[in-house]
Amino acid sequence: MSKKVCVVLAGCGVYDGAEIYESVFTLLALEKAGANVTCVAPDVPQMHVINHATGEVIEGEGRNVFLESSRVARGNITPIADVKGGDFDALVLPGGFGVAKNLSTIAVDGAGASVNPDVQRLILEANSAGKVIGAICIAPTVVAKVLGEKKVELTIGNDEGFADLIRSTGAIHCLASVTDIVVDESNRVVSTPAYMLGEKMADVQAGIDKLIAKVLEMA
Amino acid sequence: MSKKVCVVLAGCGVYDGAEIYESVFTLLALEKAGANVTCVAPDVPQMHVINHATGEVIEGEGRNVFLESSRVARGNITPIADVKGGDFDALVLPGGFGVAKNLSTIAVDGAGASVNPDVQRLILEANSAGKVIGAICIAPTVVAKVLGEKKVELTIGNDEGFADLIRSTGAIHCLASVTDIVVDESNRVVSTPAYMLGEKMADVQAGIDKLIAKVLEMA
Repeated sequence: MSKKVCVVLAGCGVYDGAEIYESVFTLLALEKAGANVTCVAPDVPQMHVINHATGEVIEGEGRNVFLESSRVARGNITPIADVKGGDFDALVLPGGFGVAKNLSTIAVDGAGASVNPDVQRLILEANSAGKVIGAICIAPTVVAKVLGEKKVELTIGNDEGFADLIRSTGAIHCLASVTDIVVDESNRVVSTPAYMLGEKMADVQAGIDKLIAKVLEMA
Repeated sequence: MSKKVCVVLAGCGVYDGAEIYESVFTLLALEKAGANVTCVAPDVPQMHVINHATGEVIEGEGRNVFLESSRVARGNITPIADVKGGDFDALVLPGGFGVAKNLSTIAVDGAGASVNPDVQRLILEANSAGKVIGAICIAPTVVAKVLGEKKVELTIGNDEGFADLIRSTGAIHCLASVTDIVVDESNRVVSTPAYMLGEKMADVQAGIDKLIAKVLEMA
């Protein structure tokens, strides 16, 4: 029977939303493996809107995380409030700054950040039901914020600032290269650095392909 | 020496911009082949903004094609006005409704549509310099509008309405399946139906992989 996987999106664009390439590679790997995918996102305002050509904030413009995420999902998207972690065999969080800006306040508050209540609930529900969690790029920081007390083992590559943030939650940071995955068998969490380290699309895809294969094997 | 390829983007999102998956598969295939890629887009307003969760127009909201395209390109983007068709070995146009709404008026005006002046110029410059043009999904309709008098052979899959539009320009429409390409050797144009027919990401990717391989072989 095909595995049911929930993909949590954070908008549409590396600097203020979900990282587009990571999200597409995640969905492609899941489709190829025959998984039954549900994309979800919170119905909340983005922290801000970034001009992706300059990197600057566009003042006075607002966007909604659910609507922007629906672009990445080609319309096939469900409000995160409508799903439970136990409904799926696995949960996967692609990266992008939206994870640190819209799914949590990590971009602003660092180690003192809060996590969107539905994202926190979904991760806790999935973990307590023994489901598998896959976290890509910056997303392991959010998993650490929620599951840090369980000493979950995670990677964000080799960025010392974010590794410190992960360690401050009680979680354990493991160094990894862009095409590697880190597997925490006991907490059932798999992570890969993706664009925390990646320069080539093919390398990012290779790491995500490994992550999805491992998540589905464990699920 | 690596081939220089210009990728023309039409925004960010299937219903009002560039089709995201097609754009990502195009860029991935080009990167894997070692091509030197320049993403371009026109600095013009989108025709409108679509709520991708409902398919409805969001009244009162406006976006810029160049800025939205910069999301797909992760910031590595050039105004189309700054490039010439002869500067590249090949030109590739991914699909998405943005091609028919922002790069041309095909979505509104059908066979009587106009093409964005810079898109028209780039296609004419590329063609007259003997460069190769790859057109994906709905983009062959724009190529037909510009090169129809040359009896260019193209596919948009099997949609009779768009096939009629292509024929009305003098171009020749060829039936094709989602994983096929149609090659016009004399006009040096390659096309594939992608999401005009596709249901699976992997099928769309297979067609685009074939298109990019052929474009680079001919370039």
